Amino acid sequence: MIQYSLGGTIEDRAHRLPVRIYWEDTDAGGIVYHASYIRFMERGRTEFLRAIGLDQSTLAALPPEARVFWVVRHMAIDYLKPARLDDLLMVETSVLEIGGARLDMRQVVRRGEESIVEARVTVVSIGGEGRARRLPDHARAVMGAFLPRS
Amino acid sequence: MIQYSLGGTIEDRAHRLPVRIYWEDTDAGGIVYHASYIRFMERGRTEFLRAIGLDQSTLAALPPEARVFWVVRHMAIDYLKPARLDDLLMVETSVLEIGGARLDMRQVVRRGEESIVEARVTVVSIGGEGRARRLPDHARAVMGAFLPRS
Amino acid sequence: MIQYSLGGTIEDRAHRLPVRIYWEDTDAGGIVYHASYIRFMERGRTEFLRAIGLDQSTLAALPPEARVFWVVRHMAIDYLKPARLDDLLMVETSVLEIGGARLDMRQVVRRGEESIVEARVTVVSIGGEGRARRLPDHARAVMGAFLPRS
Amino acid sequence: MIQYSLGGTIEDRAHRLPVRIYWEDTDAGGIVYHASYIRFMERGRTEFLRAIGLDQSTLAALPPEARVFWVVRHMAIDYLKPARLDDLLMVETSVLEIGGARLDMRQVVRRGEESIVEARVTVVSIGGEGRARRLPDHARAVMGAFLPRS
Repeated sequence: MIQYSLGGTIEDRAHRLPVRIYWEDTDAGGIVYHASYIRFMERGRTEFLRAIGLDQSTLAALPPEARVFWVVRHMAIDYLKPARLDDLLMVETSVLEIGGARLDMRQVVRRGEESIVEARVTVVSIGGEGRARRLPDHARAVMGAFLPRS
Repeated sequence: MIQYSLGGTIEDRAHRLPVRIYWEDTDAGGIVYHASYIRFMERGRTEFLRAIGLDQSTLAALPPEARVFWVVRHMAIDYLKPARLDDLLMVETSVLEIGGARLDMRQVVRRGEESIVEARVTVVSIGGEGRARRLPDHARAVMGAFLPRS
Repeated sequence: MIQYSLGGTIEDRAHRLPVRIYWEDTDAGGIVYHASYIRFMERGRTEFLRAIGLDQSTLAALPPEARVFWVVRHMAIDYLKPARLDDLLMVETSVLEIGGARLDMRQVVRRGEESIVEARVTVVSIGGEGRARRLPDHARAVMGAFLPRS
Repeated sequence: MIQYSLGGTIEDRAHRLPVRIYWEDTDAGGIVYHASYIRFMERGRTEFLRAIGLDQSTLAALPPEARVFWVVRHMAIDYLKPARLDDLLMVETSVLEIGGARLDMRQVVRRGEESIVEARVTVVSIGGEGRARRLPDHARAVMGAFLPRS
């Protein structure tokens, strides 16, 4: 039996989270409902950020003047193949670019070797008043290690 | 074309909310997923409470010492028949009993004359500190008018 | 009281569907969860297609050699402002372009005059065997009336 | 780091499935939305049945005259305490009673030692024509091993 870690694993600059397909994720077309992948990718980003110590709780516990929250600003998603009940998918998350208050990620949902869904997701860090706030230097340094080799 | 009100209607001591079944509500069995009805019934309770002026926003705006929030404490649900994509269901909500900090409701989800789901739901009013807090007299009086005729 | 039609309305080449925000649509950040808008936009497309007679049931009832199903192929979504519990949003759906087996739509979720979410969605029509199948001429003609004036 | 198995574990006549709370599971009250537990418990039942070889795919692959599907018939749920974002919950599933075409289960959602939600769930096995159909003897024998010691 293959053992999977509940929170996923990091390897070769990418985070991988296993996701099992349950009835709740499917629709009457017999396949995974297209909005379900948006939930899976959010789980992937959450576990990636938790794994590198930049999860919501940690960032929310910073002193008020540095405190930030992640908000999704933009998503572009390609639906390539259908997935089905009981499938075991893998959500792969990697960093594309880091801006002052912006993080661009690539996310691919795979079933074995096949790409099921591919997406580019931009999240921004906002301060308490709801406006973009520069990420703490520490956070930028940690994420920098995941940038693609040039 | 039959016109439905988005927030439902009150008639004969019961509130009725129309709910259309979309892809999001179904599962790969080709029918409505069983947890979807829990969402539909919550919409029904919300619209019932809004219609009689006891919605969450109104109760949350009371002075701190009277402020209450609704929380679900108990549900008993019978699934009687399946519903399907594109079905137009009606969520019927009525009051069974009013306690100090407790409201017992009966909810029936119908498709035409058929009962699809029947439930008994108990919600309690809690104060800011998370403990049960007696409903304001005004709220109890308003809801009293919906008690079954004895 | 403003009356809304449960299935929305068509006016000036666009379909508009009112959507009320319930607890199920929000998250612990106090705002609407970003995947909820994907569900709202699907409701909007479904009601638009139903209104012009091209809903799933109608297309699925065509003779086998013409039968098609709609599948989402691509979405690009901009999240502009947060929405909250009890908000009444309007999902506006319009046609951008019609290909052989492809339909490009623009969808905007508004609260009053404000744009909350803007998206471009591409759906394709597929035949029973899962491959793209040209839309029936009748369907293309009906949708053509919704193309932007050039 | 504690390792959890993605599909849960069976020990002492009960199945335990770890469930992490993500944004999708919470609502604007800052806690887990009450319908989310219904999804968690369905995941628990699915993994329990998969672990003992009685999952949907296996039962659906039986010869037509023995083929059955599981359907939820009744649920009674007590909500005892709130859970929150990032909590790691455990869904515990055990067998209470086995009827001809009926399976009664007890499900408890825990956070450490605390009970968050307790439920009794009745599922029935139905045949292709939608009516209750007696469970195969093999299935009854397998589940019998999980009955409480008398």
